[in-house]
Amino acid sequence: MAETAPVKAMLSVEEARERVLARFQPLAAEEVPLTEALGRVLAIDAVAREASPPFANSAMDGYALRSLDTRAATPDTPVSLRLAGEVPAGNVYAGEVGPGEAVRILTGAPVPAGADAVIQQELVSVAGDAVTLEAPVAVGNNIREAGEDARPGTLLARAGTELGPAEIALLASLGVSPARVTRRPRVAILATGNELERLGEPLRPGQIYDSNTPYLIAAVTRAGATPVSLGVARDLEDDLRAKLGAARGFDLLLTSGGVSVGDYDLVKRVLSERGSMTFWRVRLKPGKPLAFGALDGTPLLGLPGNPVSAAVTFELFGRPAIRRMLGAAQVERPEVEVVYEGRDLRRGDRRQYVRVRLASRGGRLVARDTGEQESHLISSLQGATALLIAPEGEGVIRAGELARALLLNDALPWEA
Amino acid sequence: MAETAPVKAMLSVEEARERVLARFQPLAAEEVPLTEALGRVLAIDAVAREASPPFANSAMDGYALRSLDTRAATPDTPVSLRLAGEVPAGNVYAGEVGPGEAVRILTGAPVPAGADAVIQQELVSVAGDAVTLEAPVAVGNNIREAGEDARPGTLLARAGTELGPAEIALLASLGVSPARVTRRPRVAILATGNELERLGEPLRPGQIYDSNTPYLIAAVTRAGATPVSLGVARDLEDDLRAKLGAARGFDLLLTSGGVSVGDYDLVKRVLSERGSMTFWRVRLKPGKPLAFGALDGTPLLGLPGNPVSAAVTFELFGRPAIRRMLGAAQVERPEVEVVYEGRDLRRGDRRQYVRVRLASRGGRLVARDTGEQESHLISSLQGATALLIAPEGEGVIRAGELARALLLNDALPWEA
Repeated sequence: MAETAPVKAMLSVEEARERVLARFQPLAAEEVPLTEALGRVLAIDAVAREASPPFANSAMDGYALRSLDTRAATPDTPVSLRLAGEVPAGNVYAGEVGPGEAVRILTGAPVPAGADAVIQQELVSVAGDAVTLEAPVAVGNNIREAGEDARPGTLLARAGTELGPAEIALLASLGVSPARVTRRPRVAILATGNELERLGEPLRPGQIYDSNTPYLIAAVTRAGATPVSLGVARDLEDDLRAKLGAARGFDLLLTSGGVSVGDYDLVKRVLSERGSMTFWRVRLKPGKPLAFGALDGTPLLGLPGNPVSAAVTFELFGRPAIRRMLGAAQVERPEVEVVYEGRDLRRGDRRQYVRVRLASRGGRLVARDTGEQESHLISSLQGATALLIAPEGEGVIRAGELARALLLNDALPWEA
Repeated sequence: MAETAPVKAMLSVEEARERVLARFQPLAAEEVPLTEALGRVLAIDAVAREASPPFANSAMDGYALRSLDTRAATPDTPVSLRLAGEVPAGNVYAGEVGPGEAVRILTGAPVPAGADAVIQQELVSVAGDAVTLEAPVAVGNNIREAGEDARPGTLLARAGTELGPAEIALLASLGVSPARVTRRPRVAILATGNELERLGEPLRPGQIYDSNTPYLIAAVTRAGATPVSLGVARDLEDDLRAKLGAARGFDLLLTSGGVSVGDYDLVKRVLSERGSMTFWRVRLKPGKPLAFGALDGTPLLGLPGNPVSAAVTFELFGRPAIRRMLGAAQVERPEVEVVYEGRDLRRGDRRQYVRVRLASRGGRLVARDTGEQESHLISSLQGATALLIAPEGEGVIRAGELARALLLNDALPWEA
C-alpha cells in the first residue's frame, strides 16, 4: 500500500504516551463559584485565609463555665453555678463569664470570654438560675479550638486536585470561593468510515452504527472536558476536509478509524497534507494503530476504528492528554496490584490490556476477565472496572498470580 | 427541652434506611438521546432489536475466498485465485465469489456471497489480477459472524443499569437510541442555623460559612439528581416558613441542622406543624439525629448540622433515596472486605463509620484511617475513599484484621 506519511517503528505504550503528553500544557485558569466547581481541577494551591473553626466553640449543648469553679464538685458536695445568660449559635456573648457563673451554650456557639470549659447539659441539673454539677470539669472540656480543622496558611488542597464533594465542603468552610480552576478543554470528535451510520438513521446494507462517537462523548465528559461531535466523515475527500475544518479552535481533535495500515489512505493523506502527522504502531493490544499530530494548530489524536481499540487507546492516550490540559496532578489512571482470576493469559510481543472486573474477597483484590477479548466485542467492555496488564514478553499469567491493573475509574483516588 | 414531635427509640442504620426507602418509588421514564444519557438509569430492559454485527464481516484487510479452493496450497504448490473485485467497508459486493475467485475486502466490510473465509493481505502475493497463497485457509477464517456481539433479543442491559461510556457504546452499536431512562429527581437543599453565612458574604463574629449546601449540591449531583439550593434559613420563624414553602414540588427536600435534641426547637416545631415528621436517633456515629417525613407532600430528610455527620447521613439515607427514585438496581454503595490498617478502633453502642483511604498492596485491599474522626473535622473527609464499618458491639478492631467498608464511589461496580 502506498504510504503518504512515515510509519515509524513500533513504540511502547510509554513512549507513545510520552510523545503525546509532551504536546499538551495546562490550560488557562478561570474562577467558578464553589457550588459549580464539582469535577474541576484547582489551578493554584488552595490555602486557608482564616482559621477553621474561626473561633473556639462548643462541641455540645450545655453550659460554659470556669474549670476552677468546679474543682471541688463531687456527688456528695455538688457545686452550683449561677446561670448568667445564654449564647446560642450565631451569637457572641456580650459579657464575660465571671467566677461562680455559667452561661447556657449551644453546639457551635462561640465560647464566651472568661469560660474555659463546657459541661454537657445531660450532666447537670438546672433549677431556676442554679446550674448544679457533681464532678469537676477539665479545662478545654467540649471546646473545639479555633483552627482545629485548619489554621490560616494551612494548605487545603494542592493545585492539580480534582474537586469532589469533600474538597468543596472543606474550601467552603474556609470561605475559599470562587475557586480558581483550569478551563475545561474543548474536544472535537470525528468518526471516519463509509460503513458508519449515525444513530437515529436507518441502516443500509453493509452499514453499522457509529458507536465510537457516543462512547467518546461520554468518556471525554467523564475525563472532565467538553465534547463536541463533528459527525461522521465518509470516505469522500470533500466531506473529510469540511469536517476536519470544523475542528479549528478546539483544544483537541479525536478521530476514530482510518489509521490502520490497510485502510483507504484518504484519511491519512488528508491529515498529512493539512498538518504534521505521525502514524504509529504501538506495541499494544487491542489498539495498535495510532496517529498523532496537529491539524491547523489543533492537536489531533487518531484512534483506531474498532470500538474496543478506540476505547482502550482513548484511555491510554486521549484521557491523559485531557488530564494534562486540566492540570491534574495525576494524568494517568491509577494502577493497582491484583490477584488474577481467569483463563490463562499468554503474553506476547504486544502488551495486552485485558478487560476485567474487580472484586474483594477476604481482603484480597481479585480481577476476573469479562469474557472474549476481541477488539470488536463491545459487550466485553461493559462491566469492566479495570484493564489487567499482561506485559510484553513470554510465558503465561495464570489464575492466582499477581498482576497489575489499570482502574477504569479514578474518582476513587487510590494510594500509590 | 420541650418536644414538639415524638422522638422514637434509637433505630439501627438498616431500620432507618428501610423506613426512608419505603417512601420512595422510581420516577417516571423519559427518552433521551444516547449521547446525552451519561449517568442516567435505564427505566426498561435494553434489548437488541437487530444482530451486532448486523452481517458477517471481515476481521482483517485481505481477500475473501472459498476455502475449498485453497485446500491444496503449499509453498511448493501455491494456488492462484483470480481477483474478481473489491468490497470496501460500507459497501455490499454485488456479485458472488465464484470458484477460483478472490475478492479484495477491508476490515468490517460484509463478506460477499459465495465466500466462506478471508485471508489477511500479509499472507498473499498479488500480481495483476492473481492472488497467490501458499497454505489452505479454513472455513470461517477472519470472519466475524453476524450476531457475535449480540443477537436479536439479547438483553443488553437491565432496567436499573446506570449508563456509563461502555453501556452507551453497546446500546449505540445496536441502534438503541433514544434511551428510555428515569427522570432525574429534583432535590431542594436548605441549611438551617443562625450561625451560618453564605459563601461570598463576609463573616460576622460568631458566624461560620455554610459548607453543607455546597457539599450537598455536589453529592446530590454525583448521585444523579438535580440540586437546587433554597439558601440558609436563620432561626426566625418567618424565614424558615418562607424557605420551606419554596420546596413545594420537589422530589425531596434535604435540610441540614436543627434536628438535634438540644437545638432550638424552631425547626422541629415548624416542620411538625406543616407535615408528618418523625425525629429519629440512629445508632450511628457520626450522625445520630435524623428527621424524616413529608412537608406539603414533599418528602423531607433532615440531616444533622455537623458537616461530617451531614455527609455520612446523606450517604447512608439521602443517596439511597435518590437512587431509589432513579430506579437504580443497587441503591446502596457497594461494601467490600478490607484489611484494616490504623489505630485501634473501639466498638460501641453505635455503629461507627470511619473515614478511610483504600489501597492495594501485594493483592491485599487495605484501608487506613484518614486521621481524627470528630464530626466537625471536614479535613478528615477529604481523601476518604471508603467508610470502614465498626459494627455495634464490644471489643476492638485492630490493624491487620478484616473489616467491611462502604465504597464512597460506586461508579466502580464491584462484584457482590
